[in-house]
Amino acid sequence: MMHILVTNDDGVAAPGLLALAKEMRNLGEVTILAPDKNWSASGHVKTMHRPLRVKKVQLEDGVSALASDGAPSDCVALAQLGLVEKKIDVVVSGINPHANIGHDVTYSGTVTAAMEAVIGGIPGVAVSLDSPDNHLGVLDYGPSARFARKIVGNLLNQGFPEKTVINVNVPYLPDDEIKGLQITRQGLRVYRDQLDRREDPRGRAYYWIGGDAPTGVREDGTDYGALKAGYVSITPIQLDLTAYEVMERLAEIDWGFNSEI
Amino acid sequence: MMHILVTNDDGVAAPGLLALAKEMRNLGEVTILAPDKNWSASGHVKTMHRPLRVKKVQLEDGVSALASDGAPSDCVALAQLGLVEKKIDVVVSGINPHANIGHDVTYSGTVTAAMEAVIGGIPGVAVSLDSPDNHLGVLDYGPSARFARKIVGNLLNQGFPEKTVINVNVPYLPDDEIKGLQITRQGLRVYRDQLDRREDPRGRAYYWIGGDAPTGVREDGTDYGALKAGYVSITPIQLDLTAYEVMERLAEIDWGFNSEI
Repeated sequence: MMHILVTNDDGVAAPGLLALAKEMRNLGEVTILAPDKNWSASGHVKTMHRPLRVKKVQLEDGVSALASDGAPSDCVALAQLGLVEKKIDVVVSGINPHANIGHDVTYSGTVTAAMEAVIGGIPGVAVSLDSPDNHLGVLDYGPSARFARKIVGNLLNQGFPEKTVINVNVPYLPDDEIKGLQITRQGLRVYRDQLDRREDPRGRAYYWIGGDAPTGVREDGTDYGALKAGYVSITPIQLDLTAYEVMERLAEIDWGFNSEI
Repeated sequence: MMHILVTNDDGVAAPGLLALAKEMRNLGEVTILAPDKNWSASGHVKTMHRPLRVKKVQLEDGVSALASDGAPSDCVALAQLGLVEKKIDVVVSGINPHANIGHDVTYSGTVTAAMEAVIGGIPGVAVSLDSPDNHLGVLDYGPSARFARKIVGNLLNQGFPEKTVINVNVPYLPDDEIKGLQITRQGLRVYRDQLDRREDPRGRAYYWIGGDAPTGVREDGTDYGALKAGYVSITPIQLDLTAYEVMERLAEIDWGFNSEI
C-alpha cells in the first residue's frame, strides 16, 4: 500500500487540500502535514532560526491532519526527517487555487514543497488550478483533484522520473471540457506588479507590491499555452539550474586573473 | 556611470554587505537596499499579504542605505518597481558568510535576490564566501569583495549573459592563495539535517531542524569541487527549470486519457 504525504501552501484548512487528500486516499494511505496558515509566494524555506510546532487538527471532513507553524517546505522536511514515521512514497502538494507556471515555480510554496521532497529523495508533485482571477464564491476542485489522482496513480505504477518535480496545472473547466493532457516546458509569466505607495495615519510611507494579476505568454508547448488551450499541463522541473550553454561563453572571457574551466 | 544595487540576506548591518558595497563603489554609483533583519534560507519571497516599510539608515562606514522589512527578493522588487528612481545596471547580492552551492540556490536569500533581478530584466550576481563552519571571530571579506569587483567589472564591460544569474562562491583564503577562477556547474550539496525533538517547560513538544552543517560532493567541474580545490567558482544559473530530457519519457506514458505533447 502506497503512503502519500499531502501538503499545501494555503494552510491545512484550505478546500484544495481537502479535495486533493480525498482523491489521494483512492491510491493509498494519506498523511496530511501542512502549514497552519497561508504561505503563498513564500519561496523555498528552511526554518532554522526558530523551532517548529506541530499539532493535530481535524479537517472539515472529519479526517485527522498535522498542522505546523513552518513553511510548506518545512512541513515536508519535518516529515522526511522522521516526524512521520512511515516511509513516504510520494509528496503531493496542493491544490493551489492559482496556476503555478513560468517563473512562479521558485516563489511558489506549492512547488517548493514538492522540490523539498525531491531534494530529500522522494518524488514530489505540485498541483495547481488555473482559476479565473475574477472568480467569486467557492471553487470547484473536483476536476483538478481527479486529474491529480490519475496522474499520481500512473506515476506510482510506472515509476517517477528521478530528481524531477512534477508540476501539474489544471484549467478551470468541467471534466468533459478538459481536452486532455500536454507534457510542457516552463513558459513565460508576465508579472504586472506595481509599487503602490501609501501613507499611514501618521504620514509615514508604506509600500504594497500591487498591480494586476500576472498573465503569461500564450505559446504552444508551454504550461501557460496548454492551460489556455484547455489542457492539463505537466511540466517536469529539474533542480540542476546550471545554464550549461552560458558556461562556454563565460569561459571565453578574459577575467584578468588565472581561470580554468 | 554604472548604477549598482547592493543587497543581501543577512541584513543591512552585516559586514559582508559593507565590504561588497565598498568594492562596488569602484565600479560606479552604489545604492544599498537590504532587509532590516536576517533572512537566511528564506527562499524566493514576494510579499503581497502585507505592506513593506523602508527606512533610511547609516552604515558603520557612514554610508547611507535603505532598509526594508521585506525579504531580499522584496528589496530587489521594490527597487525595480520604482522605489529606486535611477535605472539599475546590475544587482549584486552578498557577501553571504557561507557558500551557496548545489541545491542551496533555491533556499538562499542571497541567490533568490539575484533571481528576482534577472526575472525583472536586470543582471543579478550573488556572492558568497565559503567560510569554515568552525570559524570564530570576525570574517575577512576582503578577498571575496575584491573578486566580486573583478567579476562584476568584467561582466559590466563585456555584457552579462541574458536571463542568467551569476552565482559566485569564493574560498576562505588570502588573495594569494586563491588559485584562480573556474566556471562550474551546480554541484551536489549533502544536507545533514536531523530532527531535534524537545519539550518546553510545559511538556509540549517542539522541533528544531538541526544536525551538522551541510557538506558536498567534491567533484571536478562543480561549484563545491572548485571551492575545495581553492578556486573561485562562477556558476551560471538559469530560470528555465524544465527537465527537457524527462519530457520525452513522460510523453511515452499511457495516461489513460487524451494526451498530446
